This record gives sequence, C-alpha cells and structure tokens, in this order.
Amino acid sequence: MKKLLPIIALFAIAFGAQAQELSNFQRGPRPVISPEIQGDSVTFRLKADYATVVKLSGSWMPNPYGGTIDMTRGEGNIWSVKIPLPSPEIYTYNFVVDGVAVNDPQNVLVQRDGTRYLPMLIVPGERTENYGEAKTHGTVSHPWYESKILGYSRRLSVYTPYGYENSPKKKYPVLYLLHGAGGDEEAWISMGRTAQILDNLIEKGLAEPMIVVMPNGNPGQQAARTLNIPEKQIDWRSEEFRDAYVRSLCTEIIPFIEKNFRAVPKPSSRAIAGLSMGGGHTISASNLYPEMFDYICPLSAAGSATPEQVAALKKAGVKLYFLACGNADFLFQRSEEMDKKLTEAGLDHTYFVSEGGHTWANWRLYLNTFAPLLFK
Amino acid sequence: MKKLLPIIALFAIAFGAQAQELSNFQRGPRPVISPEIQGDSVTFRLKADYATVVKLSGSWMPNPYGGTIDMTRGEGNIWSVKIPLPSPEIYTYNFVVDGVAVNDPQNVLVQRDGTRYLPMLIVPGERTENYGEAKTHGTVSHPWYESKILGYSRRLSVYTPYGYENSPKKKYPVLYLLHGAGGDEEAWISMGRTAQILDNLIEKGLAEPMIVVMPNGNPGQQAARTLNIPEKQIDWRSEEFRDAYVRSLCTEIIPFIEKNFRAVPKPSSRAIAGLSMGGGHTISASNLYPEMFDYICPLSAAGSATPEQVAALKKAGVKLYFLACGNADFLFQRSEEMDKKLTEAGLDHTYFVSEGGHTWANWRLYLNTFAPLLFK
Repeated sequence: MKKLLPIIALFAIAFGAQAQELSNFQRGPRPVISPEIQGDSVTFRLKADYATVVKLSGSWMPNPYGGTIDMTRGEGNIWSVKIPLPSPEIYTYNFVVDGVAVNDPQNVLVQRDGTRYLPMLIVPGERTENYGEAKTHGTVSHPWYESKILGYSRRLSVYTPYGYENSPKKKYPVLYLLHGAGGDEEAWISMGRTAQILDNLIEKGLAEPMIVVMPNGNPGQQAARTLNIPEKQIDWRSEEFRDAYVRSLCTEIIPFIEKNFRAVPKPSSRAIAGLSMGGGHTISASNLYPEMFDYICPLSAAGSATPEQVAALKKAGVKLYFLACGNADFLFQRSEEMDKKLTEAGLDHTYFVSEGGHTWANWRLYLNTFAPLLFK
Repeated sequence: MKKLLPIIALFAIAFGAQAQELSNFQRGPRPVISPEIQGDSVTFRLKADYATVVKLSGSWMPNPYGGTIDMTRGEGNIWSVKIPLPSPEIYTYNFVVDGVAVNDPQNVLVQRDGTRYLPMLIVPGERTENYGEAKTHGTVSHPWYESKILGYSRRLSVYTPYGYENSPKKKYPVLYLLHGAGGDEEAWISMGRTAQILDNLIEKGLAEPMIVVMPNGNPGQQAARTLNIPEKQIDWRSEEFRDAYVRSLCTEIIPFIEKNFRAVPKPSSRAIAGLSMGGGHTISASNLYPEMFDYICPLSAAGSATPEQVAALKKAGVKLYFLACGNADFLFQRSEEMDKKLTEAGLDHTYFVSEGGHTWANWRLYLNTFAPLLFK
C-alpha cells in the first residue's frame, strides 16, 4: 500500500487532470497538448478519428463563431493548426468537427457562459497580467440568502480578500458586482476573472482590500447550474415585481452581507458596478437608493436617469461615477446619452471609452481599471 | 430604461441560461429541449446541421463510452432518440457526432471529471432523493491554506451546514472527504453532490450538522482548473515526499480548519473518508495518526494496514470504521483483504458491499449511507 500511493500520485501529476471515474488505471498514450504557446505562435490540436472537416474558431477572429480556420489531419488522426499569437487577452475558442462545435479536451482552463463551456486561451502580456493566478489568494464562497421579495433562498458568490481570515477585527468595504442578461452569480468569477484580478490588484497594493459580492440578477433563478422549479408562476413584468431584484439587492442582500461578513455598513464603503443588464441594475439601484452607494460604475449599460435622479446622487455626495463602454458596443449610443445627462446635471464623473464591443475583454478591463479607484 | 429591464429579465427566464456575451440580444428560435423526462421515458435532442451519424452514449449503457444508440434526424436537423428511463441514479451522457464526443448544449446540469464536462441525467427515485436541491442550503467556500510541506498555497473546498452563519457560538464536527486519482478539490462537490447530500440529510435530521472539508489530494496541484507552474521540480516518489500530502492534511489542513472555522478540535469530532486513492490516503492517515480521527471510512480503497496499525486504532478507541466497496470493483479483492485484517485484529467495523464497480454512483451512495452514522 505504502508503495502504491506515490505511484498513483505520480500518474496524476504526469498526465495532468484526468477523469477519475473513467480513466483511472486505464491510462492511454501521452495525451495531445493543446493549446501550446511557443514564442509568438500557438498550436491547437484535436484527435478526431473519423472527421472529414475540422476547423478552429476563436474569439480573436473577425468572424469568431463560424469555424473559419481549417485544421490539418496528421499522424494518429490528430488535427492541428499553428497560428500567430493574437494580442494579449483572454480568448475563447472551440473546434468545429463536421459542423458541430466541440471543446478542447486537453485544456484545463474553461469558462462557463450560460450552458456553454468554452476553453480559454490566455495570451500573456501587460493587458492580462492581472488575469492569471497571484501569489496570494482570497476566498470565494457561495452562501445563500433568503429573499422574501422573490420568494426563495438564492445563491451568491462572495470574494473575501487575502488576509480576511487572519484579521478578525478588520472590517472591509464591499463592491456589489452585477452580471448581464444570461449570466448568473458565477459569471464574474468564471468569465470576469474577478478573484484573480482582485488578488493581483490587492497584492500589488493598487486596490484596497475589499469584499466583492456577485448576486444572481435573474429574479426567476435560485442559483446557477440548478434546475429551478418555481413554486408559483410569477409575472416578472407585473407592477409588483418591477425592480424586484434591485429591491432584493438593496434591502435583502446588502443587510445579509453586512450581518454575515465583516463589512463596513456605510455608503462610503459600498460600491456598485454592473455590465449590460447589470449596468441597468446599477443605474436602477442608484436611482431608487441614491444614498446607498458612494461608488457607482455602470458598464456597457442600458440605463438612464432623470435630471432629478442625478441631482439626488450629487446631493448624496457620490465619490466616483465611472461610466464605461466600448466604442463598437451596440449600447454605445446609450452610454453617450448617459454621459451627456450626467454632464448636464453637473455630476462629476469619469467616462471611460474603450475599443471594441459588448465583450468580457472589455468588462475585465473595466474591473481592472475602476477597482483601484474605489474606497480611496 | 425602467421599461427595458423587466423585459430583459423575462428573456433570461423564458430561455433559461443563455450565453450572455455571445447571444445577448441575438435570441433565435425557441431552443431544443434536452433531456426531457416524460413518464418512464427520456428523450435526448441535438441540433446538428451537417452531421452524417449522430449517436447517444450514456453511463447507464453496458458499453457507455462507445456511442451505442443511433439518433434520428428530424425537422430542422434536430436529431433525437427516446429511450426507456434507466433506474434512479445520476448518469452522465454525451452525443457522438461523426465520431466526436459532443456535450448537450441545452442541459444546465453538468459534472466536471478532470477536463471532461459531462451533462447529467438525474433520474428521480428513492436512490436519488438526497441528490437534488434541498430547501435549505449550506455554504460552499474555497479558502486557500499555506503548505510548508508541499511548498505553496493550495485551494480547499469547505462545506458549512445551513445555520452556521446564524449560530456564531456553535462549534461543529468535521468530515475530511478525499477524492481519487485524477480528481481535485471540486470532485466531491461536482460529481459527489456532497452539498446536496449533506443539505438533505441535515434538513431531514438524519445527519448531524457538520463541516465537510475537501482538499486537493494531488500534491503537485495548487488548485483545480488552473495552470500550475511549480517553482521547483519535486520527485513526489522520493523519501522526503512519501506521504507528504497525508502529512499536509493532518498537520496543516486540520489546524487551518480548526483555526478558521468553528470546528470542535477533538478526535471525537473528526471523521476521514476517501475514495480510491483517497481511500488509500484515509488508511495512510489513520496508520500515521491513529489518534486523530474517531471515524474512518475507506471507500473502494487501495490500502492496507499492519496488525500493529489496526491495534493502534483499536487502542485509540475508533468509534466507526466503515469500509465500503462495490462487488464488481477492480479493488474489491483489496477490500476483502482489508475486512479480513480488521476482523483478525479484532477491530469492530462495518463492511458495506454494494452492487457495481468503481463509480460515483457508489461513492454518492456511500456518503449518503455513512454520513448519518458520524458524530453520534
């Protein structure tokens, strides 16, 4: 027995992460390596014995989801293609085998976007330096809060910074970070690399140690990746449920967090940020509860506020209003209008316009940009 | 704006979990439903425009990974097959399109086994009644502990039971639950349904409220789903690193848990259980530290103990020794031998033999069976 254990452990190391139920003790030949970055190129490989056409699609391509680059069959029916490394960013890609999208079975780095599991290619560089693992790590937890407004208990993702456990008397500011339509409480963790970005920024002394709370912004969902069987049918468009999620956020989630985590329960220690639909939620929350947050960051948002609503924020003494959008975003015009409204109402704010569209590349960039501005 | 938000939310509900970056505002026709359980049958569906052969593989089949059931092309290139519902259990399945394994893009229930993401089919019944969502939920968190023995910080999964946050003076017993070769700190959460099983057992009053700690048992891995770049090359077979992980578990992880969680720091409040390689780790830990755990559960284990080592456990006053294995497991003979050794050494123990082999179906059953026996 004593001899067997280290051998099993060695197998696990030598072959990387393997399926334990399926392939345990049934190791085959050395697996294909994919993707493989070498200098300024990257090679993708897939074993596909019976395929007639294999293509590569990547989010760096002009037409990323059409399967645009042909792969070539090689020895052992391993199809491959070597391409120039795209500029530093986190990309997703997949193979298209005889017209059907297929993941890369060799890649341990996988994002989840709704029901899609997408292999990642992280191209190193200045842009991505905070997206990889830091030396120190905060804790990500998934507590459930009880929502009387929405009628059931609901799952949250909560990041507490490195050192939280060892500083039992320290209290922390909190960023409420909201996802877009189709996302859930894991979106900012999976696609947004929130834990990695905060770990790196805090480790470098660039951001204040903070708690980050990522709720589920779909009022009809209890939790990501579960079958939700609602006890009663609710018309979420009805007057009763208008803004129901935003009310749950501000009157249920925030008290839950301030009770169960060591959070400073003050507007000066609360920030809210959200992308797309979550940007709309951010604007709704600041319209409905103008004194709740001193830091407000709508990202690629579909939202608006009346002059009176902006005036209420000004009166409340908002410390940072960070509005961001890509110049190719289909909601860019909305952001232009919001910027104009904020200017007209005399609210000091930052308007951050980036290249590109409605993408996680932009939302990671925004988080990496505004997080250092919070709570200072 | 106020009008827009509920409409977006409705989209998210009506169409279920959708990819937010890709398909946001680009909704197509109503998606395919798969799998669909109706009475005593289940239908699987996949849209595949250019495929020539589409098959279904399922873990309930005699030859589950060969793609054994043909699917039929229907309207809109939706391929489908309707089969009798297998007996209650959690199964995994995939499609095989022109010889390439493909996941079901419609199914939100997905397990991860190494780098494989496998859609799940949960067949309801008595066997699976604790595998679905309970009404109350514990919290799963992922703290990192510092390992001097292994040379870096490492990620854990920790389950705290429902009520933990609201009972600040209560202390809890702890189950250390170990995975097999090829698994990681998420295996028991993902494939083992540990949070659901404990939520249900505790809610029903069948198990004591307990903390469950699931470490990563591969000493060369910092964390699941990350690229681990070791700072130095370590020969894990060398004398220095023999049992290194088990030593880290008992002298680093346990103190970390007992410091950072409200755990009762006594043998009578510590249990250890593990499957396959983790069963080996369980036996190694109880050999090396006979006074550490009052509850010891090797599952489908490759492990052994000398008569002296069993005598040390007997002397330490072990309260439960729960040995389990499937009668078709390739390690069944090992368990038979272990049972015999325990009997010969006079250690009162439970030997639980189930149908079947080295499978998660068995490991979920074992957890569901022994968890109610702990800490009583």
